[in-house]
Amino acid sequence: MAEFDLIEKHFAPLSIDGLKDDAAVLDIPAGFQLVITSDTSNRGDHFVEEMPPADAARKCLRSNLSDLAAMGADPFSYQLNLALPKDIDEAWIAAFAGGLKADQDEFGIQISGGDTTGMAAGGLSISITALGLVPTGQAVSRGGAKEGDLVVVTGPLGDASLDRLRMPYPRTAVAPLVRKYASAGVDVSDGLPADLGHICAVSNLSATLEFAKIPFSDKARAVLSSGQTTPQDIITWGEDYELALAVPSANIEAFQSEAVEQGVTLCVIGIFGSGEGCTILDENGAPMLFDKMGWTHF
Amino acid sequence: MAEFDLIEKHFAPLSIDGLKDDAAVLDIPAGFQLVITSDTSNRGDHFVEEMPPADAARKCLRSNLSDLAAMGADPFSYQLNLALPKDIDEAWIAAFAGGLKADQDEFGIQISGGDTTGMAAGGLSISITALGLVPTGQAVSRGGAKEGDLVVVTGPLGDASLDRLRMPYPRTAVAPLVRKYASAGVDVSDGLPADLGHICAVSNLSATLEFAKIPFSDKARAVLSSGQTTPQDIITWGEDYELALAVPSANIEAFQSEAVEQGVTLCVIGIFGSGEGCTILDENGAPMLFDKMGWTHF
Repeated sequence: MAEFDLIEKHFAPLSIDGLKDDAAVLDIPAGFQLVITSDTSNRGDHFVEEMPPADAARKCLRSNLSDLAAMGADPFSYQLNLALPKDIDEAWIAAFAGGLKADQDEFGIQISGGDTTGMAAGGLSISITALGLVPTGQAVSRGGAKEGDLVVVTGPLGDASLDRLRMPYPRTAVAPLVRKYASAGVDVSDGLPADLGHICAVSNLSATLEFAKIPFSDKARAVLSSGQTTPQDIITWGEDYELALAVPSANIEAFQSEAVEQGVTLCVIGIFGSGEGCTILDENGAPMLFDKMGWTHF
Repeated sequence: MAEFDLIEKHFAPLSIDGLKDDAAVLDIPAGFQLVITSDTSNRGDHFVEEMPPADAARKCLRSNLSDLAAMGADPFSYQLNLALPKDIDEAWIAAFAGGLKADQDEFGIQISGGDTTGMAAGGLSISITALGLVPTGQAVSRGGAKEGDLVVVTGPLGDASLDRLRMPYPRTAVAPLVRKYASAGVDVSDGLPADLGHICAVSNLSATLEFAKIPFSDKARAVLSSGQTTPQDIITWGEDYELALAVPSANIEAFQSEAVEQGVTLCVIGIFGSGEGCTILDENGAPMLFDKMGWTHF
């Protein structure tokens, strides 16, 4: 099936303008800044071979939405770049586009363009570049944390390490609250210590967490207490796509109560201070020693 | 070498802000619209294995710049998504980034973010999403051609089919003239008949070209007249990255003279009329029959 027919049939219906040009023309409303992020997901590396195409599509789109939420930005549009094995069949494309459609509806975003290509070498690579909008001056960066800010996460961690077919849920609903209440943010994609380490490095601070305060699902807690996995394995896996935020203590009460209205329970797990690096304390107040901080790509 | 170190060392210096966040925050100046386009280049499909990494980088960036120029948009920033074989070495990355740096300087664009990933399946895929700016309302689409508009190309075609290591040169310099003088535009990436066919389809017109008026380099002309290649092969290859434009006849003289000042010689090769499809006439005025219109991706 020719590229143009595939696009016309499966991807054009996901757009407003039918993808009829070399490029899309977008109006950025006055008073807003554009926020842009990219994520690449490769089959066998970022999602398992047996993940259904609809879920692979959604997982890649959601990882981008998660990055936007960490910046306090609302979804606007996205570009989709596909490098597909030459023998890909149309059913795969149709299912993939169906996954995108479902998440477009759920998160309020539309496709603005992209490129669909064949790759003779046989791998399958999905790249999405997502655009978001934020009122001018309100974007939340990694560099804004202050000494005394609380370390806050938006939900349980570790489930991604236990279920490789798990679908993350980006915290798009609280993006407006992130820009209202947080001083710095990151999404937990590479592992909590690594991701908080980014905030610490750019903000010139340390973060000290209490392991006992880190929220885990019942399943993750059971696996941990049975000894089937270690705290390091569950914490450094990443891909949970919860947000890790720096929140001034004066803001935490209002932030928590407004987040609950969006279905999100915020957990305070530590505090930013002087110094550097991310330290996790065990139940006796002793630093837990990890031999790696997070997931690496090579 | 870890992803973060690679980015810090080779890609962060190509950006303004050092790529320190999950996403970049961009200011779109008042009175401008954002133009966005994407191109994926896979090794072995879109560039040959022996192409130096700097050139592979530049070719992918340039194909995006060409799409922006076809819309009449000036370069603004770009996102880079890489899926690389796990055994890629740092020298490859350094050379690749060096190619980007050279073209950033030449075409006035900067990197705003991206994702660098390993792909176990072993292919090598480069995706670039480029952003451009155009004064509000002045973007040139495929749908604006009118009956009687001239078919104009910005330079010789066919050289890409003769030299697979050839580096295209995007017509960024004439983007301001494209939005000033052209009614529709496309870049010649898939082959002249296919690309003009896009304008015809969206504008509900036909295009009639005279083969004798299509500009070819001396080399292409020599190969054609020796019979080593056919008009179809040279015309439908694509990847020349010249622009094919619809230009109202009242505009052509001013457009040509201002384009010459930018080093670009415009050639009038035909006319848009009623009907549909792109027809190329031979020296006797008879339609040339091609069994394909352009390059397809699958």
